[in-house]
Amino acid sequence: MPERPRGPVSYIAGTAPAAEKTVLTAELRLDVQEFYARYAECLDGGRLQQWPEFFLDSCIYRVTTRRNLRLGPGEDIVSLSTRTAMFDRIVAIGQSEDYEPHVQRHTISNFRIQAASGEELRAQANFQILRTFPDKRTEYFVSGAYSDRIALTSGRLNFREKICVLDSDIPPDALIYPI
Amino acid sequence: MPERPRGPVSYIAGTAPAAEKTVLTAELRLDVQEFYARYAECLDGGRLQQWPEFFLDSCIYRVTTRRNLRLGPGEDIVSLSTRTAMFDRIVAIGQSEDYEPHVQRHTISNFRIQAASGEELRAQANFQILRTFPDKRTEYFVSGAYSDRIALTSGRLNFREKICVLDSDIPPDALIYPI
Amino acid sequence: MPERPRGPVSYIAGTAPAAEKTVLTAELRLDVQEFYARYAECLDGGRLQQWPEFFLDSCIYRVTTRRNLRLGPGEDIVSLSTRTAMFDRIVAIGQSEDYEPHVQRHTISNFRIQAASGEELRAQANFQILRTFPDKRTEYFVSGAYSDRIALTSGRLNFREKICVLDSDIPPDALIYPI
Repeated sequence: MPERPRGPVSYIAGTAPAAEKTVLTAELRLDVQEFYARYAECLDGGRLQQWPEFFLDSCIYRVTTRRNLRLGPGEDIVSLSTRTAMFDRIVAIGQSEDYEPHVQRHTISNFRIQAASGEELRAQANFQILRTFPDKRTEYFVSGAYSDRIALTSGRLNFREKICVLDSDIPPDALIYPI
Repeated sequence: MPERPRGPVSYIAGTAPAAEKTVLTAELRLDVQEFYARYAECLDGGRLQQWPEFFLDSCIYRVTTRRNLRLGPGEDIVSLSTRTAMFDRIVAIGQSEDYEPHVQRHTISNFRIQAASGEELRAQANFQILRTFPDKRTEYFVSGAYSDRIALTSGRLNFREKICVLDSDIPPDALIYPI
Repeated sequence: MPERPRGPVSYIAGTAPAAEKTVLTAELRLDVQEFYARYAECLDGGRLQQWPEFFLDSCIYRVTTRRNLRLGPGEDIVSLSTRTAMFDRIVAIGQSEDYEPHVQRHTISNFRIQAASGEELRAQANFQILRTFPDKRTEYFVSGAYSDRIALTSGRLNFREKICVLDSDIPPDALIYPI
């Protein structure tokens, strides 16, 4: 799948490569935006048990930092490779002694489709997550960029790979919830 | 109007229910995004007297918190049900002794259309509002989610119902401006 | 080029003026969003030397505040009018003694196309920039609105004019990086 140049080249419909032009309709680009919005809605609404359903059975979910991304997967903060592992993690969250209930609020923006075929999209987006503990004021939690591969299968979008790259090398004290 | 499932089901054009497929064009989805952007532009630009024009004459505007939303409308922080009431509120802002001039900046993101007919859309989006007092640095003000019903009438969008659900149960000290 | 009304008038396809209707396809509106996302990606990724490529050779880049915008260009914090001047500025950043390496993260939202012809768009959007110094936590940096003219030439988008209007009259201590 050809990598779309990352520079200032913007593409108006007539100049996009023919293959991408066919695949990457306005509808699909908006579906991608909404897919991220529903992913965040699931997490922000506390419906953690539905989180793995946004992924393929065999998938990659990683949380790392800008600096550690260069050092490779061995330095990841979180690394999961199946939906079963994701379910296990969610169960662990509920059982953790460190766990203090709170809610998150995602702002997902700056979407860019880096490559597209009929079967897969490579997408990046920025995120900023606020969190709120009961009877407290809302506070900044974490920010960064998603760098994802999204499978297109029979009218559905699912993450094949999701890499959450945090801006700060100092991860927040409790990185328990999915990002 | 059928509620669209909130889970990970994403819809690529071919799989959307026929009725929604007809209504929910890419143009309309972008119009909804821009409608929110213009709503925020009005507030952030301090043109409060134009705020009611984004609503139908008979409408609902509520501000509540996540916790109070479950308790029902009786616990709302703000509740207005006509454009006239909205105009009155704006006049009251100008006359309030607590009022200290400042500007807001909205970030509206994570749009999801929960249902669509030829006459109405149910839309949700996340918001984060910063505020800036003269000669001060910008600060976080409030965040949450909009849960709205938007009427489609003769080429215009207007809020029929707008519920602003704040993330924190501790509302900001001065919740004077429209959200 | 007619100014589109800024009020609550939203346009569904059938009601837009004929000229704009032809130009302003859903694809182009999404291309504009992605153009801003790639602009931010360039800056957030630290590829400053590519920053001028998002502009025409002869262009305007200004940074000002809400208050100073009313006072005119003489009060700008930054004002550059060619790509050469932009390149010079980037070289100066690297040589500045005040310069402390850090990364930015843009959230660009609330897009509104204020006017459109076959050759140019007038677009506005909100921005919020976080920054992160090595081994520090991420912090709020600056926020405001872009008010831009974007040239459409042979399948490319380029800024003809970019005005960054900061929310606070107190600019951040080090406004070195492009906004």
